[in-house]
Amino acid sequence: MAKITKQSENFSKWYTDVILENDLADYGPVKGTMVVKPYGFALWSNIKKILNRMIEDSGHENAYFPLFIPKSFLEKEAKHVEGFAKECAVVTHSKLVSNEGSLTVDPDSKLEEEIIVRPTSETIIWHMFKKWITSYRDLPLKINQWANVVRWEMRTRLFLRTSEFLWQEGHTAHATKEEAMEETLKIVDIYKSLFEDYLAIPTIIGRKSNLERFAGADETFSIETMMKDKKALQAGTSHYLGTNFGSAFDVKFQNKENKELPVYATSWGVSTRMIGALIMVHGDDMGLRIPPRIAPIQVVIVPINPKNDNPKEFASFIKKVNKTLSDNHIRTKIDISENSPGFKFNHWESKGVPLRIEIGMKEFNEGLITISRRDSKDKSQLNLDSLDKLSGILDDIQNNMFENAKNFMNDNLFESNSFEDFQEKLSKGNCFIKAYWDGSDETELQIKEKTKATIRCILEDVNDSSKHCIFSKNAAKHLVVFAKAY
Amino acid sequence: MAKITKQSENFSKWYTDVILENDLADYGPVKGTMVVKPYGFALWSNIKKILNRMIEDSGHENAYFPLFIPKSFLEKEAKHVEGFAKECAVVTHSKLVSNEGSLTVDPDSKLEEEIIVRPTSETIIWHMFKKWITSYRDLPLKINQWANVVRWEMRTRLFLRTSEFLWQEGHTAHATKEEAMEETLKIVDIYKSLFEDYLAIPTIIGRKSNLERFAGADETFSIETMMKDKKALQAGTSHYLGTNFGSAFDVKFQNKENKELPVYATSWGVSTRMIGALIMVHGDDMGLRIPPRIAPIQVVIVPINPKNDNPKEFASFIKKVNKTLSDNHIRTKIDISENSPGFKFNHWESKGVPLRIEIGMKEFNEGLITISRRDSKDKSQLNLDSLDKLSGILDDIQNNMFENAKNFMNDNLFESNSFEDFQEKLSKGNCFIKAYWDGSDETELQIKEKTKATIRCILEDVNDSSKHCIFSKNAAKHLVVFAKAY
Repeated sequence: MAKITKQSENFSKWYTDVILENDLADYGPVKGTMVVKPYGFALWSNIKKILNRMIEDSGHENAYFPLFIPKSFLEKEAKHVEGFAKECAVVTHSKLVSNEGSLTVDPDSKLEEEIIVRPTSETIIWHMFKKWITSYRDLPLKINQWANVVRWEMRTRLFLRTSEFLWQEGHTAHATKEEAMEETLKIVDIYKSLFEDYLAIPTIIGRKSNLERFAGADETFSIETMMKDKKALQAGTSHYLGTNFGSAFDVKFQNKENKELPVYATSWGVSTRMIGALIMVHGDDMGLRIPPRIAPIQVVIVPINPKNDNPKEFASFIKKVNKTLSDNHIRTKIDISENSPGFKFNHWESKGVPLRIEIGMKEFNEGLITISRRDSKDKSQLNLDSLDKLSGILDDIQNNMFENAKNFMNDNLFESNSFEDFQEKLSKGNCFIKAYWDGSDETELQIKEKTKATIRCILEDVNDSSKHCIFSKNAAKHLVVFAKAY
Repeated sequence: MAKITKQSENFSKWYTDVILENDLADYGPVKGTMVVKPYGFALWSNIKKILNRMIEDSGHENAYFPLFIPKSFLEKEAKHVEGFAKECAVVTHSKLVSNEGSLTVDPDSKLEEEIIVRPTSETIIWHMFKKWITSYRDLPLKINQWANVVRWEMRTRLFLRTSEFLWQEGHTAHATKEEAMEETLKIVDIYKSLFEDYLAIPTIIGRKSNLERFAGADETFSIETMMKDKKALQAGTSHYLGTNFGSAFDVKFQNKENKELPVYATSWGVSTRMIGALIMVHGDDMGLRIPPRIAPIQVVIVPINPKNDNPKEFASFIKKVNKTLSDNHIRTKIDISENSPGFKFNHWESKGVPLRIEIGMKEFNEGLITISRRDSKDKSQLNLDSLDKLSGILDDIQNNMFENAKNFMNDNLFESNSFEDFQEKLSKGNCFIKAYWDGSDETELQIKEKTKATIRCILEDVNDSSKHCIFSKNAAKHLVVFAKAY
């Protein structure tokens, strides 16, 4: 049976327990790598399917670019180099030699130019865009890819920060700045909908500060979320790249008047990190809680005492219930294992299945089912001819989970007008704090040093001389949200 | 307009032209790598969706294992080492240092143990299976993953042989030899159905000879297909691995009587290579021909002279036709570009779209459509109230393409009873030849040396002393198929 540390005891250990005990993932042999196990992968597949549809419906096409990037490509965009050079897997050789079963690297197979395993694909994609874009007819070019990427992280955590992770990365090219910015923001809306409407995770969205911006972007918009320990998790980003990559890879286009013009870029991504957010936003001491719209199993049916006096009729009663649900496109599972009902209840609660149906002799005799909600723990009964209500109940669970998460975030989102108050609030525990900031790197760094809180995103620009930075007291430039972050 | 070399002129160049001109793929910057462009990726996605459903419906679960394999893992299975050591991408460092914008590998970041970019995942998966399998309750374990793999190939060709490719790899663990062999063969059936029923590619299926077997397998079953140049392409394999990987990674299980027993394995895969087969089985001098069931666009609608006297009513006529098709789950595209009808016809024929609908004033006035089949070039007309016949026509195209490919294969599949006849047949051009073989590596190698033909697969075992090997004249052990292969 799942042994999960209490959240209040050790949140970090609770997180790892939930993942390992519920077969979401396991540690890979190379430090920092992760195996996504079938239950975790089913969750990822559901999220992927929903997001992929949104991406395709908004006019993007999927493609696939190589894993291997020549080292020289990383040198081409100055800030990009700085951002990724220190965490690169470098391929230097192409052959091993076997000496009596033991393998050594063949020195003769040393590559002329080292190869980087992609940490992100801007460079290789803009290298290809150079070939594909010559005229205004080639624009906009809106590409997405689902891929694995590698960033050599020192402090790794399952789903949150792993050396290799799965993600989608969108890369688009546009004729004008306005169109590229519009695209950047359209993607923000798509991500917001994915998080709020499907993952039931409320979001705070805004621009990143200079220090937190993506390496190579002019603007980064970020989807920030609040975990149950009230720390922030950046769950997705959408970047307006200006002409940085277009210039670095010498991509230009001819407009209708044959004038050569620069090409504007965006890139955007969400990753398996979302599953980390999902766990930490919704999970409780019993384990996972998965919102119905993305749950691999939406309803688990637990037969109680199936070896009763009427085993055949009882089994067909169960099957009938299951079929009605399947016909209504509900993802179900009947647990016919040898375990006790109590074991099964705990097992599926820990796995976060939104709704459980219990069917015993009473239900069988009276033609009803007992349902138990994972979100509220409410139990109730439903007549067999009212099974069509289950879809509505699943919707209600979905909405309830979102509302609860939203209330939780709002209850822990404060405003502060002085640095003393700011420090006091943080000293009482993690939280999100809205405050005015002067826009300088220095202030941001000093606040981080003193409180460990960072600027999660910029909510508003300020043009009001009565507003002052909580730290420097200088004129405020932005209203921002601070928090300690993952 | 697409400029495609004729098949008869230079088949190899025809193949590359078809890919590049129709935007299926492009060359990546690192030698041997490939970019799968949106049209090629849409084709891959359609195939993937169909196969994934078959894999899941037969009780397999998707998961994801790390890209990075410790070098020592490859040493554990003796034959596996030999098969893959010479074509490995080796990661040796984890950091670059930037010197005034130029990047060099940081010598201090040298890894303690080199990492191999997975060429296939048996080793890492059986390392994990060791953790997951202890009891008979854990078996069978039936896992599949969709992933990229890397094999450092010297002579690469788009889709057929690239340093990195996309594939699915299934890995299963079983309590008995019989069950593992049954699984191996069940997968062969699934692949056969994928190729024949969806890709419209006829198959010849059998066991591989000792020399052609997968490195680490006890038996390899292979799906062999005939290209238009009458060469063979191995399009998929399913391996019975016996206890080779179970032993190498020390995986055992306890049966119900608490007895410790070995675990039997299978692995199986098909890759983006399938797209190469698809091109070379169905393509012609006009370009691609894609079977309807996997075509990204099944029907293209070409409006002729849309700027006529009734542009509005004409446009709504087109839309109505398109909507009827979409409602019938047909994947359509309306080509409203500025190009001429002739250009459009060539363009979509080259892209292999199975069916074209032409709508001009005549069609508009008479309430009908003109349809043109890519497979047979037949043109006919259909009344607007008979649009429901289009699904049937698409089925007919699908079947016709399969029948044509099957006839082509059968017409070029010969039998030979003497090596003189065998050589003569091959001297007249590529073909498949059924012949008896004594089962020895030596005979196989000598035939290969003299004719370049290899044993594609073993069709039957022979227990008839009147049958003799065509080459050695020794007693025949197997009836096999020879061919020159990709």
